[in-house]
Amino acid sequence: MAKRKSDRGLAEPAAGNGILSRRTLFEGAIAATASSMTAAGAAAELLPVQAYMQSPGAGFATYGQPSRFEDKVLRVIPPPPAPGLLGIGTARTPLHLLDGMITPSGLHFERSHSGIPDIDPDQHRLVIHGLVRQPLMFTLDALHRYPMQSRIAFIECAGNSGALNAPQPQPLGIAALHGLLSCSEWTGVRLATLLEEAGVDPAARWLIAEGADGASMSRSIPLAKAMDDALVCLYQNGERVRPSNGYPVRLLLPGFEGNTNVKWLRRIKVVATPTMSKDETSKYTILLKDEKAWQFVFPMEVKSLITRPAPGIALTSRGFYEISGLAWSGNGSIRQVDVSADGGQSWAPAVLQEPILPKAPVRFRAPWQWNGGPAVLQSRATDSTGMVQPTRAAFAAERGLRGIYHYNAIASWRIDEKGEATNVYA
Amino acid sequence: MAKRKSDRGLAEPAAGNGILSRRTLFEGAIAATASSMTAAGAAAELLPVQAYMQSPGAGFATYGQPSRFEDKVLRVIPPPPAPGLLGIGTARTPLHLLDGMITPSGLHFERSHSGIPDIDPDQHRLVIHGLVRQPLMFTLDALHRYPMQSRIAFIECAGNSGALNAPQPQPLGIAALHGLLSCSEWTGVRLATLLEEAGVDPAARWLIAEGADGASMSRSIPLAKAMDDALVCLYQNGERVRPSNGYPVRLLLPGFEGNTNVKWLRRIKVVATPTMSKDETSKYTILLKDEKAWQFVFPMEVKSLITRPAPGIALTSRGFYEISGLAWSGNGSIRQVDVSADGGQSWAPAVLQEPILPKAPVRFRAPWQWNGGPAVLQSRATDSTGMVQPTRAAFAAERGLRGIYHYNAIASWRIDEKGEATNVYA
Repeated sequence: MAKRKSDRGLAEPAAGNGILSRRTLFEGAIAATASSMTAAGAAAELLPVQAYMQSPGAGFATYGQPSRFEDKVLRVIPPPPAPGLLGIGTARTPLHLLDGMITPSGLHFERSHSGIPDIDPDQHRLVIHGLVRQPLMFTLDALHRYPMQSRIAFIECAGNSGALNAPQPQPLGIAALHGLLSCSEWTGVRLATLLEEAGVDPAARWLIAEGADGASMSRSIPLAKAMDDALVCLYQNGERVRPSNGYPVRLLLPGFEGNTNVKWLRRIKVVATPTMSKDETSKYTILLKDEKAWQFVFPMEVKSLITRPAPGIALTSRGFYEISGLAWSGNGSIRQVDVSADGGQSWAPAVLQEPILPKAPVRFRAPWQWNGGPAVLQSRATDSTGMVQPTRAAFAAERGLRGIYHYNAIASWRIDEKGEATNVYA
Repeated sequence: MAKRKSDRGLAEPAAGNGILSRRTLFEGAIAATASSMTAAGAAAELLPVQAYMQSPGAGFATYGQPSRFEDKVLRVIPPPPAPGLLGIGTARTPLHLLDGMITPSGLHFERSHSGIPDIDPDQHRLVIHGLVRQPLMFTLDALHRYPMQSRIAFIECAGNSGALNAPQPQPLGIAALHGLLSCSEWTGVRLATLLEEAGVDPAARWLIAEGADGASMSRSIPLAKAMDDALVCLYQNGERVRPSNGYPVRLLLPGFEGNTNVKWLRRIKVVATPTMSKDETSKYTILLKDEKAWQFVFPMEVKSLITRPAPGIALTSRGFYEISGLAWSGNGSIRQVDVSADGGQSWAPAVLQEPILPKAPVRFRAPWQWNGGPAVLQSRATDSTGMVQPTRAAFAAERGLRGIYHYNAIASWRIDEKGEATNVYA
């Protein structure tokens, strides 16, 4: 079984250092990595059969799990801020080991301020009060009777990628650096439906949403967003919302920074002005370089990330690879993603996987011929509002690098001659 | 906390026995089931806080699971054909407990002919041979280097709903009757890409796809389908395909009957004519009323199903409910779904949840005012080819009811005066 020559020379360059034309995908001109064999070799390869082909396999399970051979595909949990504070912090999605748009619920990122409460849904209530004609209380059964909507949406923690504010690039993986970004199909009741039933006072402009966790995590949210596309979610990827994502009910504010999507939603108070909760004053403000800060900047800005190649999944030999990644914008849909293999000197457009949905991640793909030498891989997203992901230098020039929130600059993976990827600034 | 009157009379009828206009959804005229309260009552309801709000919750998990309060949300596993044959049969999706379009991978239906093999991906190979210029062998690492695509697609077992061929309606739930239908986002390599690399002989018209299970489950597949939209899938809902769904690699033939989507894919042999495997001769042919049978009828026909209300989730009081269900077609996309509450005497169109994707299920929803009396709920889907789901009588007149495959007639839930739903013929 001889290895075929891995570069048949049919691929069409589109940018420097091996980025190929997207048409390469459709012309069968991919320099491939399959092993060719004779007909006799193919027959021989199929014999002898494996032991598991010669006897019955395992029976059925009422609730399935991943293969035991995938037991390294796990969320990454940084150490807690102090011993014993096991519920304060994050669990981060291993984006380099996934593909597609949906994040499996077991690997959806978590950010908790006081751990995951163990909520009995029969005891749980959602109360809407404040500047309303009629305060209302909802059981889970009551919420289930309302009209629902589903949408595929990303949630990104405001602090995702915040470690890239460090003066020197941290030698971390994609989960630790960028893993506070996940996507589910969410299903629930429009918050507007519930607010309309309660009857919002004309003086109302904001609401405060409070979680039932030990931190009473609370955020002020513009009433306009609540009336636009906010969902009171009961289902995540088809089944009931997972405890780590807010069971039995979480708020979804499509495109808004993660913690405004309040988990374990217990209370919505309709108010005239922002409440200035601890969770929006001590945290979640954007510290600028001139000693000022932005507050209540909610939508996560246009951003993208190459998830393969990435740290931890080394290239094994020169030749063809597909560059694969995710792009998203809290301000709309993704219009274009460009990729570079030479640190941004030249760019070529990637293929965007349909459906392209607003405030949902888009999987992008680009063909690449690795010549075995060093490369710096980058992706740069443009959204439907025309916003383009900035370089790190441009981001730093505008905002400085003192804050950790809403970092959306172009990320760079350096590929070395061994095929290993590391986080660099370029 | 007085219950509000549950029918405010603002809803607009659209069909008999309480089916409301879709505009009801948008006018806030829903007769609601929330409990109204005074401002003081709302404040009192929020005190005292639950115990889990007064102490830290659980820490993070590397791979999350559903809430312990959802431990009844499980696949339904009918008894095996004989004692000990635990891997022969099905595990069925509890569609009535889910919402949205995606099925969580742990609840995706399974149909296995000899259990689930425990495959080490490092040992697994996919061989393409037969009428090709160059036989090829692929490791999982090799497959990972090819360009990939993602798509959201349903898979439905050819035998789904086959129990509705019984002369009398079986008193079963939705999982037992219709639970061989699920949906995932699948990601993999186009089979056309691999076949083009192998170089298909002009004489080829079919291929046979073989699984690595103990049954060597094998199906003949038209080459035209393989070159159109077949995917060699590595990922399901973002993570690697689950063992019960074909780990480490399964074939996806969007819209085709379930078992052609060969799990544990090991071999594709390119051939001139169908192979007449045991899995397409002893099974998976459509027995007609005139002693004839259809063979190689692949696409699953247009179909729909109301998933809520459904057996096992009783209505608790008269008033507003949302009728929610799924519609799908192996021949294209869903154009329209109509619902009836009077056993098909009158119909009104349901709202279809976007995105509406070809060969993917669409969640439909319709507002309904239950007057507390008997009702027969039905849904009727129309696809982009103009095909309309037949009544059971029309289906029986065309095909007879001797077979169990490709049953796609309109299903009926009778709601009794206690609010309980049962499977009926209507």
